[in-house]
Amino acid sequence: MNGPGASTALLTDHYELTMLAGALADGTAERPCVFEVFARRLPDGRRYGLVGGTQRVLDTIARFRFGDDELSRLSEAGVVGKQTLDWLASYRFSGDVDGYPEGELYFPGSPILTVRGTFAQAVVLETVVLSILNHDSAILSAAARMVSAANGRPIIEMGSRRTHESAAVDSARAAYIAGFATTSNLEAGRTYGIPTAGTCAHAFTLLHDDERSAFQAQVDALGVDTTLLVDTYDITNGINTAIEVAGPELGAVRIDSGDVGVLARQAREQLDSLGAKDTRIVVSGDLDEYAIAALRAEPVDAYGVGTSLVTGSGAPTAGMVYKLVEVDGRPVAKRSSHKESRGGRKGAMRRHKPTGTALEEVVYQPDKQWPPMSDNDRDLQVPFLRGGQPVADPPTLEQCRKRVKRGLVSLPWEGLKLSHGEPAIPTVFID
Amino acid sequence: MNGPGASTALLTDHYELTMLAGALADGTAERPCVFEVFARRLPDGRRYGLVGGTQRVLDTIARFRFGDDELSRLSEAGVVGKQTLDWLASYRFSGDVDGYPEGELYFPGSPILTVRGTFAQAVVLETVVLSILNHDSAILSAAARMVSAANGRPIIEMGSRRTHESAAVDSARAAYIAGFATTSNLEAGRTYGIPTAGTCAHAFTLLHDDERSAFQAQVDALGVDTTLLVDTYDITNGINTAIEVAGPELGAVRIDSGDVGVLARQAREQLDSLGAKDTRIVVSGDLDEYAIAALRAEPVDAYGVGTSLVTGSGAPTAGMVYKLVEVDGRPVAKRSSHKESRGGRKGAMRRHKPTGTALEEVVYQPDKQWPPMSDNDRDLQVPFLRGGQPVADPPTLEQCRKRVKRGLVSLPWEGLKLSHGEPAIPTVFID
Repeated sequence: MNGPGASTALLTDHYELTMLAGALADGTAERPCVFEVFARRLPDGRRYGLVGGTQRVLDTIARFRFGDDELSRLSEAGVVGKQTLDWLASYRFSGDVDGYPEGELYFPGSPILTVRGTFAQAVVLETVVLSILNHDSAILSAAARMVSAANGRPIIEMGSRRTHESAAVDSARAAYIAGFATTSNLEAGRTYGIPTAGTCAHAFTLLHDDERSAFQAQVDALGVDTTLLVDTYDITNGINTAIEVAGPELGAVRIDSGDVGVLARQAREQLDSLGAKDTRIVVSGDLDEYAIAALRAEPVDAYGVGTSLVTGSGAPTAGMVYKLVEVDGRPVAKRSSHKESRGGRKGAMRRHKPTGTALEEVVYQPDKQWPPMSDNDRDLQVPFLRGGQPVADPPTLEQCRKRVKRGLVSLPWEGLKLSHGEPAIPTVFID
Repeated sequence: MNGPGASTALLTDHYELTMLAGALADGTAERPCVFEVFARRLPDGRRYGLVGGTQRVLDTIARFRFGDDELSRLSEAGVVGKQTLDWLASYRFSGDVDGYPEGELYFPGSPILTVRGTFAQAVVLETVVLSILNHDSAILSAAARMVSAANGRPIIEMGSRRTHESAAVDSARAAYIAGFATTSNLEAGRTYGIPTAGTCAHAFTLLHDDERSAFQAQVDALGVDTTLLVDTYDITNGINTAIEVAGPELGAVRIDSGDVGVLARQAREQLDSLGAKDTRIVVSGDLDEYAIAALRAEPVDAYGVGTSLVTGSGAPTAGMVYKLVEVDGRPVAKRSSHKESRGGRKGAMRRHKPTGTALEEVVYQPDKQWPPMSDNDRDLQVPFLRGGQPVADPPTLEQCRKRVKRGLVSLPWEGLKLSHGEPAIPTVFID
């Protein structure tokens, strides 16, 4: 989260600019190139990935400008010389970008983003493009598994305190795209218009002389539809006090510790016996997708999820790379090791059964041949920028949410299993 | 990394402000409170933690202001009402902050930061304080293990592309404090004055008609002291070509893939046989502290580390909490579960042997009794803010680096083992 007008140009690795300097000096800088973003594999045992951050990438490219402050810094630090500084001063990306829309499923080898332009134009974008896609896709992919596990029950994102303060804002965005209901992060509310939510922490109860006066203060300030946190001292007493103070119209109780499954069942019985049949039960406290799934049979109405969301539930980065695949129309690829890449610009389509279930990801070379497509197949890349300018209005977050939902519905049923396994569909490369 | 003047006030969980509203309404907002930041435990199997981000916390508190834009957002979104908005409009933190200086070792229960002020003043800082400390401490703690493992050989931080673009800047900062030599991140160079480094990626070689012309272009642009990346096609050929182009004065070769230990040995022999006895060998490619340690006997001159650094090498967040421990001079603590905290304001000192080796972390209650201190013991908290104002000039990054170094030297030798184990010293609580 940089300020809306701030330059993003120094969110860049030093070597992007020394490569630029070398290429400007020997005349290769203007060669037309194609760079491709893809993931060699999914995080260990994951069955699908979801593309996050695409719109943030496009916004960042638009703000990728070297102003006086950036240029003086580069000059003072001796990063590059005058020829390169002059070139950077007028930098505006004027190439083409295509890719998977935000919220689309991806698999190993999917060409998630394709950047076409001169070497100079395209190489300098590598670092920030990857930072955004790797972070946002990691969070979005983890979040979607939680949403699946919650099976329709709402999830509140509350992980801001467990990640970098700016990553927190974009984690909230990714979680919302995945289908989370709300976030605790107020900046995510301002920047992205995501609904925010929150009521009270244990500190509020501890601040007061007793639990009753804390609950009374909260109900007075936030109304009876609020959520009272009942596990500061003793949960049974806490629930009794909560209903005494708020009445059976109380919105919800929250339990943040202990064996929340057992506690939720006890709380439900107690609330029902107190006539608070519509009072919801919110649980939180180190929940991840497995804990959420384990609570499926319990009377839980909503989940609060923090740490596991913002850390990608064990996979904090998506491991995508930005590789040069074509120079002057000629395919290129590193070939010294297992880290081999396939040269040449790629396209991709996803084949489906007539029922809409995905069958395979087909990665092809549009300059060589287009594989036959049936009505059940779908081309995956869409144009984002032409000559550096946006082709279409950005999708809303609601549209991205719908795309995630459609994608998950299209997975073969094994694809939604939380256990470790193979990618839900194979990637087929047509050379 | 927000703009230098940008408000940090909305990097805050919704519930901090609803708690504030409740406390303002019932008159408890002005109660004097003590909040404490601590970690209940170290990440799984880690033997020490290092405090990162303290100075960023203090800078953030100074910029924690609700301007017109923040207030309108809160009002429009209905987060809080007029009374609270009016109070926020004039918010300036005017309390006291003490804590562990940046780069200090910490252990379970260490009182890393103590915030004293009214409830209202102190509660609203929770989220952003934790975001910063949890992120920066996680990165710094992982980085220090890598520096230990490298045993004096320099490490280049190059993880920007594998984490959120703003987290990347502060990861570079944390790595530098831990003892990394340089970073690839240009914004970290501008914002924090950290030395940046970088030469070329595989893309630069692939851009050219052959490896030789790529190396020639790089040497022309960056001089013979540059680092040539020799593993695009074939490492043996690459090294031959590198020395042919640059001569035996070539600064370094970099190997980014394969079994880098074996390859480094072969490269050393080959370079020596070509007369390039001073040409250094830099290795990179998914290195973590274990891989670095495994390379200790190999002829490696420097390491490039990316993903494992920015993801905290398996522990991407430090798990610190910000707990209310005292209200109106009375200790308070949650007590419904295993998540119990110790009430009351804490101080801490570290006992050492006469040789300087740390023995134990003693956490005491300064309002009750001060444990006897010998010349070998050291009080750990220092005053940061009094009445909201800085007590001293901030330490330089170089001073923080020295503190890390001194801390690691003071650990018992088991404390530097990379394997999973118990904290290097026990925490002793004096009630």
